[in-house]
Amino acid sequence: MEWISKSNILVVGLGLMGGSYARALKRLGFHVSAVDVREESIRYALENGIIDRGATEPDPGILGASDAVIFALYPTVFKEWIRAHQAALKPGAMLTDVTGVKSCVVYDIQAMLRPDVEFIAAHPMAGREVYGVENSDERIFLGANYIVTPTGQNTPEAVEWCKSLGKLLGFSRISVLSPEEHDEMIGFVSQLTHCIAVALMTCSDNRHLVDYTGDSFRDLTRIANINDAMWSELFLMNREALLRQMDGFIGELETLRGLLADGDREGLREKMRLSTERRSYFNKR
Amino acid sequence: MEWISKSNILVVGLGLMGGSYARALKRLGFHVSAVDVREESIRYALENGIIDRGATEPDPGILGASDAVIFALYPTVFKEWIRAHQAALKPGAMLTDVTGVKSCVVYDIQAMLRPDVEFIAAHPMAGREVYGVENSDERIFLGANYIVTPTGQNTPEAVEWCKSLGKLLGFSRISVLSPEEHDEMIGFVSQLTHCIAVALMTCSDNRHLVDYTGDSFRDLTRIANINDAMWSELFLMNREALLRQMDGFIGELETLRGLLADGDREGLREKMRLSTERRSYFNKR
Repeated sequence: MEWISKSNILVVGLGLMGGSYARALKRLGFHVSAVDVREESIRYALENGIIDRGATEPDPGILGASDAVIFALYPTVFKEWIRAHQAALKPGAMLTDVTGVKSCVVYDIQAMLRPDVEFIAAHPMAGREVYGVENSDERIFLGANYIVTPTGQNTPEAVEWCKSLGKLLGFSRISVLSPEEHDEMIGFVSQLTHCIAVALMTCSDNRHLVDYTGDSFRDLTRIANINDAMWSELFLMNREALLRQMDGFIGELETLRGLLADGDREGLREKMRLSTERRSYFNKR
Repeated sequence: MEWISKSNILVVGLGLMGGSYARALKRLGFHVSAVDVREESIRYALENGIIDRGATEPDPGILGASDAVIFALYPTVFKEWIRAHQAALKPGAMLTDVTGVKSCVVYDIQAMLRPDVEFIAAHPMAGREVYGVENSDERIFLGANYIVTPTGQNTPEAVEWCKSLGKLLGFSRISVLSPEEHDEMIGFVSQLTHCIAVALMTCSDNRHLVDYTGDSFRDLTRIANINDAMWSELFLMNREALLRQMDGFIGELETLRGLLADGDREGLREKMRLSTERRSYFNKR
């Protein structure tokens, strides 16, 4: 599975993430095509040299010529796309994705897929609070994590191919997790934190406090600016794992609340010391 | 109450905040003294030109010569200090503080204070996750909020003096709130957010996730590195307001959890849209 044999790359879904993949791959010398329903996205990408070729429909000419396909679609749209258009894919093509949830996507896609193409799932943990190919920027990959989530159906070659794609894109840390491990981790690290930021904004009308907020409040709520269509889908597709994480966190907040209500200074201090000690591990990288 | 008549300034408690006040005021040309029980702090500050004069005891010579006194002590220590040493203060002296909670400090101090000195409370909303005069830095005031919290006992001159002190120190926004308004605000903007960061760290042993955390998780938990002695005291001294804020936030998280458990996509999206709209107000400053 040499990269030389994957020189024609197709990006399906040319938003922030798809656009950033396209920019990085084109700069690396690949021939990059894109399919997106939004005509302005294709036009913008062609005019700005982000892609070599584009279409607003899954053009069989483009599909049949693509050695590798990167899907940067919402999970439900991704499944529909595979169902409707996989017949036009090139035999031997390697497929990957950027989807932020894995268990409820990877197995379904692999189950319906033609046997002569392979889907190896990945989650590039990068992003910005802006949307669209117009805001795409391959620098978002630098310093970020890239996680490959193979199943028993994947070949070792596909896992290696996918890892090398992450390296080529410029990610700093490449890991391999099972879809289930990935979803549990992402439920805590990303989805729970977005829930917290949203709840901080919606629990009361706090706009009159804008004059009094410092950096820590702004840091904490930066992700409260949230794409509701995408994140509601990600939450719902990872429902069980996220519910577990929310329950663990709410339970811990209730414990802290109890210590405060009881005036238990030593109990509060113990929690704070544990927090400080654990947080120190996150400074070292 | 001209500044010219307040040229001798005493800082009581020479930690990060007291040290930063001292640096700023000395640079502005004031004669700055400091009292701190920690001998190394006084020595460091003298050797590094942060103060002009220092002592590890409340030296009557220093106290009697100080036109203005800034208290940068823990709330309970502050009250004890006033009780024990106020007799040595200069008649007509103006006192202020940096305490992060107000209702349970300001009234007690004013009630016990000599009638010929005045205490006007203030909260400089600045800080760093490091401690001690060795880490003091007057740049922490730039861009930050400074809140004066007068009571009915304060003179308009003292309020003006305190506001002008905030301006001189370099704070960007100077506000006036009642002690009660201040405590409600700080319960939400600062204390609740610290509770959240602590609970995120203590709800499970998440150290194995360090390889997968992105910027948003690091931003959210930066304040989980917390001075347990100081923050447990601040929480307990603002208990009622913080319990109200925690209850509101936990209730909202439970609502989000219910929407997720019910698979209520539109309900989730509505919360996310409200969150995004409200957060936009915090970007404008």
